Amino acid sequence: MAITPINVADKLTLFDEQWSPKIVAQMNDHHIKLVKFQGAFVWHQHEETDEMFMVLNGGMRIYFREGSVTLKKGEMIVVPKGVEHKPYAEDECQVLVIEQAGTVNTGDAGGENTAANDVWI
Amino acid sequence: MAITPINVADKLTLFDEQWSPKIVAQMNDHHIKLVKFQGAFVWHQHEETDEMFMVLNGGMRIYFREGSVTLKKGEMIVVPKGVEHKPYAEDECQVLVIEQAGTVNTGDAGGENTAANDVWI
Repeated sequence: MAITPINVADKLTLFDEQWSPKIVAQMNDHHIKLVKFQGAFVWHQHEETDEMFMVLNGGMRIYFREGSVTLKKGEMIVVPKGVEHKPYAEDECQVLVIEQAGTVNTGDAGGENTAANDVWI
Repeated sequence: MAITPINVADKLTLFDEQWSPKIVAQMNDHHIKLVKFQGAFVWHQHEETDEMFMVLNGGMRIYFREGSVTLKKGEMIVVPKGVEHKPYAEDECQVLVIEQAGTVNTGDAGGENTAANDVWI
């Protein structure tokens, strides 16, 4: 069978880098990614795509210009395209992210946190 | 904040029906759904969309014409568009499904297992 299951926990053991999304699957024109991060990311937005976050381990906060939300393990959120946001995690957070294929992690902001957007594990 | 977290475990307590997907979020042109099921579903395919399954609780098997795969909690799979498949679970399985908005659960097969494709919880 070419169609094989993806074990999320196993995939998470394959990398330690933070702020560096790894693609585990493609669904239509979307990539399903895993990312680990800690600390504060840059303010940014994605003009072309909504972005779904689901917390797998740990907890995170997403700041918006008009407030913030806290997400714990088992919670998800969809950040609409064009909405500025800034992820933050006090301790390392492990997240499943789904967004349009080709999306750059820092969106319109660029800068030193920009990671490759085509790394599969 | 209009952008609110979705607690998957809480959402799963809101319905008991099997084989009846419930939408919890939209991301671009895709719906994120929860579904509970047990037993064997019909053979079907979706001509227009890949379909992502992630097991939240329990376990399932997906039969394809050339084999089958077993998925347990924490595992996901993407069934490509146009590929015939038949989900099966001995005991109740709870799954997160992502597919193009408007997708009908029975795809090209139709029949008595066909559920509404626009029910939000």
